[in-house]
Amino acid sequence: MAEQDAAETWLPSLMTETPQEGFDLAISMARRAVKTTQPDVDTLKLLRPTYAADATDLIQVSGVAATWFATIAAANEYWRD
Amino acid sequence: MAEQDAAETWLPSLMTETPQEGFDLAISMARRAVKTTQPDVDTLKLLRPTYAADATDLIQVSGVAATWFATIAAANEYWRD
Amino acid sequence: MAEQDAAETWLPSLMTETPQEGFDLAISMARRAVKTTQPDVDTLKLLRPTYAADATDLIQVSGVAATWFATIAAANEYWRD
Amino acid sequence: MAEQDAAETWLPSLMTETPQEGFDLAISMARRAVKTTQPDVDTLKLLRPTYAADATDLIQVSGVAATWFATIAAANEYWRD
Amino acid sequence: MAEQDAAETWLPSLMTETPQEGFDLAISMARRAVKTTQPDVDTLKLLRPTYAADATDLIQVSGVAATWFATIAAANEYWRD
Amino acid sequence: MAEQDAAETWLPSLMTETPQEGFDLAISMARRAVKTTQPDVDTLKLLRPTYAADATDLIQVSGVAATWFATIAAANEYWRD
Repeated sequence: MAEQDAAETWLPSLMTETPQEGFDLAISMARRAVKTTQPDVDTLKLLRPTYAADATDLIQVSGVAATWFATIAAANEYWRD
Repeated sequence: MAEQDAAETWLPSLMTETPQEGFDLAISMARRAVKTTQPDVDTLKLLRPTYAADATDLIQVSGVAATWFATIAAANEYWRD
Repeated sequence: MAEQDAAETWLPSLMTETPQEGFDLAISMARRAVKTTQPDVDTLKLLRPTYAADATDLIQVSGVAATWFATIAAANEYWRD
Repeated sequence: MAEQDAAETWLPSLMTETPQEGFDLAISMARRAVKTTQPDVDTLKLLRPTYAADATDLIQVSGVAATWFATIAAANEYWRD
Repeated sequence: MAEQDAAETWLPSLMTETPQEGFDLAISMARRAVKTTQPDVDTLKLLRPTYAADATDLIQVSGVAATWFATIAAANEYWRD
Repeated sequence: MAEQDAAETWLPSLMTETPQEGFDLAISMARRAVKTTQPDVDTLKLLRPTYAADATDLIQVSGVAATWFATIAAANEYWRD
């Protein structure tokens, strides 16, 4: 990760007000893990047309989001209250 | 995600009356995660004949749904009462 | 999903008498998720010779069943009593 | 699944004496899920040389076993006593 | 599995002193599941150059280890004390 | 793993101060599992251009990180306090 990214606080908490915000956090954590591995935004932009038009990749993206979301939902006790 | 989609409340809660509604919510969350990555509905329609007639993709879809469902089921305490 | 399928109650509960029934329910939920994505039974029948004779697909099927089963087992408190 | 297999009680319980027995049960449940999808033993024997000499398949087999084992371990409260 | 392997007690417990030992146990359980499927060590040695120089396989190996580790960590209550 | 690596204490605890540190630990555990399988750093460097410019691999990396993170988050009780 680029140094200035590493110093940045991007994940202060797993707590969100609603499940939908939890879903959005899951998406952003999934993307952050990709960016941690490939920090070069231009490369990521080049890759977008490939996976965004590939059914297998899109299905896999959903599975990855589901795994991040599972942790966020447990953290928020499933927003039961 | 298109701006007006982002403002829309599509996930007010993880709670459902029955496991079957929980299953349906899992399917819709799985699809939403795909749409969050590929908002263009025409592209998604173009892809449908590919994955809907591909055994490996269909098996993967079921695995993704299972991961979303696991979280929804835990949220609803497995509809035990 | 075809309208009459959607109205049908196929998942009244996650509770089963035995782990083996829980295993069978996991298999049927896994298959239901496929059918929700590809409702056309003829297409599914056409695909069967492909995945049922493909080692990678069969291994993936088992992994998918394991994920569905994990939720059903937790729902039934692992049939400990 | 062949009718006489379906009637057979092969999974009376998830409880095992030791983690190693739990590991063995996970392997057999993983294989059972494959057999539920492909009951023809000859076909499975034909497939063996393929996956048993394929690194990607063997790694995937381990991941599948891990998912089955996770449920069995939780059922047995991790054999802590 | 070769008979003498089956009789051998290789997994007396999931308990480890430290997370690092838990990580090592996860790696060995992951490898054991592979060996249960392919007991022939020569075949496994032949495969090593393939997966050990394949990015996709190496990423998959890490995911498999993570699944085994998740169970071991839960068994040890995350070594919180 | 090289002997001197094996003796090194790299994972004293799963506890971290913040979710972000937990995310970083998940990334490092994911990489450690790869290094345990392929200790040769030069080989890993050779592989980097492949997976770091491959959408499918990058998505899979995120899924693997999510699985490691799930365990670390549970260990830290989701940093709720």
